[in-house]
Amino acid sequence: MTITSFHPPRRTLMGPGPSDVSDRVLQAMARPTVGHLDPAFIGMMDEVKTLLQYAFQTKNELTFAVSAPGSAGMECCFANLVECGDKVIVCQNGVFGGRMKENVERCGGTAVMVEDEWGTTVDPHKLEDALKAHPDAVLVAFVHAETSTGAQSDAKTLVALAHQYDCLTIVDAVTSLTGTPLMVDEWNIDAIYSGSQKCLSAPPGLSPVSFNQRAAEKIRNRQSKVQSWFLDLNLVMGYWGGEGKRAYHHTAPVNCLYGLHESLVIVQEEGLENSWARHQRNHLALRAGLEQMGISFLVAEQDRLPQLNTIYIPEGADDAEVRTRLLNEFDLEIGAGLGALGGKVWRIGLMGHASNQKNIDYCLNSLKAVL
Amino acid sequence: MTITSFHPPRRTLMGPGPSDVSDRVLQAMARPTVGHLDPAFIGMMDEVKTLLQYAFQTKNELTFAVSAPGSAGMECCFANLVECGDKVIVCQNGVFGGRMKENVERCGGTAVMVEDEWGTTVDPHKLEDALKAHPDAVLVAFVHAETSTGAQSDAKTLVALAHQYDCLTIVDAVTSLTGTPLMVDEWNIDAIYSGSQKCLSAPPGLSPVSFNQRAAEKIRNRQSKVQSWFLDLNLVMGYWGGEGKRAYHHTAPVNCLYGLHESLVIVQEEGLENSWARHQRNHLALRAGLEQMGISFLVAEQDRLPQLNTIYIPEGADDAEVRTRLLNEFDLEIGAGLGALGGKVWRIGLMGHASNQKNIDYCLNSLKAVL
Repeated sequence: MTITSFHPPRRTLMGPGPSDVSDRVLQAMARPTVGHLDPAFIGMMDEVKTLLQYAFQTKNELTFAVSAPGSAGMECCFANLVECGDKVIVCQNGVFGGRMKENVERCGGTAVMVEDEWGTTVDPHKLEDALKAHPDAVLVAFVHAETSTGAQSDAKTLVALAHQYDCLTIVDAVTSLTGTPLMVDEWNIDAIYSGSQKCLSAPPGLSPVSFNQRAAEKIRNRQSKVQSWFLDLNLVMGYWGGEGKRAYHHTAPVNCLYGLHESLVIVQEEGLENSWARHQRNHLALRAGLEQMGISFLVAEQDRLPQLNTIYIPEGADDAEVRTRLLNEFDLEIGAGLGALGGKVWRIGLMGHASNQKNIDYCLNSLKAVL
Repeated sequence: MTITSFHPPRRTLMGPGPSDVSDRVLQAMARPTVGHLDPAFIGMMDEVKTLLQYAFQTKNELTFAVSAPGSAGMECCFANLVECGDKVIVCQNGVFGGRMKENVERCGGTAVMVEDEWGTTVDPHKLEDALKAHPDAVLVAFVHAETSTGAQSDAKTLVALAHQYDCLTIVDAVTSLTGTPLMVDEWNIDAIYSGSQKCLSAPPGLSPVSFNQRAAEKIRNRQSKVQSWFLDLNLVMGYWGGEGKRAYHHTAPVNCLYGLHESLVIVQEEGLENSWARHQRNHLALRAGLEQMGISFLVAEQDRLPQLNTIYIPEGADDAEVRTRLLNEFDLEIGAGLGALGGKVWRIGLMGHASNQKNIDYCLNSLKAVL
């Protein structure tokens, strides 16, 4: 059998990510590959760092993109900050809190779970109870924007609580970065990770991360080596230049970084505040249309992520059939429910480049046609 | 400061990788992003698997691309196959054997080092001595094609020896895949990893791997969980389809996989034997030119990798100055020495798309102009 070049269909991506990638970013991906130690490339990496600092609203030196998707960004935070025997309080209100627990345990730590119903936010009172009950905890981890439910938790309050009890914080901002307000320095977040393929609208494959001084110090003073060589920040930083010199660590995904760079330039052109406002405005427009169709949301109004609209599957509609028809007849991707929400909800993304009126109209009309 | 779009220079990449990427592959990278669970994408992943099986010369079901650069492919092999307390014999004849040792130790294993001089091949007699001295060893790891020195070891013999002593094998084929003969099934290699940016000439960011039944069984029967969630093959396989169904694990780097797919289609079009022959032919042409200039090779003739020519820096030439001038005046990248060979050698790659007469002429003429 001879296999020929692959030509993907052009979809409208309104699931939980990847989101539509603009032609500007796609074209950047196709620029000539240069060496990962080429001065021209190093200069671009410095710009990526500056642009990520803007997107995260931080001055953290230790701000860069992990050379792998968001799951590796999560693992980078846990593998560097958790040592064998550490007790970590993990707040779970969806799928990704569960993945955090897995990470803690695989690093040899103990996870204390603070559970909230899927679709609700992390309850600060429950977190405080756990902090009181576990004075030996050293870390608190939670998801700012739960990609599995579309609920947004109050990161500022949760971080402040954790610090009151001398815990560092790891925050999952995979779906929130540039979509809703996120202030790493103002909120004192210690370690944070995101993904390239959500509101940044770059192709998947990179995970922006940022660590403040407290986190960096904990990593530098570890008793044991980080269990992952690939993700060991003490080594990675030699390459990304946190400590000055550019030492070879691993070969960076050059063209992916071209794409991320371009997506961050677009964020800078629009301005963060404008981006947040656009996501909110478009969420309201989509909501109005969905509600006219009698469709209701999983998440309470004040807790909803504008970039990820989780709706109940209407009575009588066949989950898989509707999504398949949307894909086949309209080239439109929306997301299925994940984990416990499988078969119960759909997730409609309005992320980054995909958050626009044209997509909203198209999605509403396509849904009407299929339902 | 406003940061604008990045336009890289067009270099000729004749270092140890990344190698020149063809316009076909670059264009594939820029095709519209689709969802990582889109049936169209899943179909393409099946093709990538088939094409990788061809490139590796294997029927292994467990053949796919790790969603991160070669270092993560290495870590994927070690994290899955090494359990706490395992004894692993690591053959080192360059930088990457040292990285294997790091991996073993970070997985809680003990590394028994078999050391050969950098620039020489792994000595099977030394390996056999180590196997005899350590009957409790469970794994043997070595580098087929040492990217830091340009030496190629006899993988077939080393694997056969390991099996004689009931050890599984992990083989680093980052620089050998499609450049020199590599027969995963015929040589009975148990686990192998490579990189996208060497002889495949795709951009960096993916690591093709393959595991045979014996290796897969060891992974399935582990006593402990794999310490990396991101690289846990028991989970990854749910997505790449080794066990049938496509379950969400992490978001695959969609556009990078477009690029890898196209590069593998090119390999298939040329044919593996033709690719090996081309690499050998071009190596001889470069060698002739270099020898005319009085330049000599680090590695003995019969052990040289045709795709990575490691030469002594000529007397009187300034390492950094020459490479900087080649880059600035000729847009030509050659590689510096790594580790103990820093300042002593240069590494000239003739890998994949970059292995052609035009590059050879250009490299020789540029070197003459600068030296």
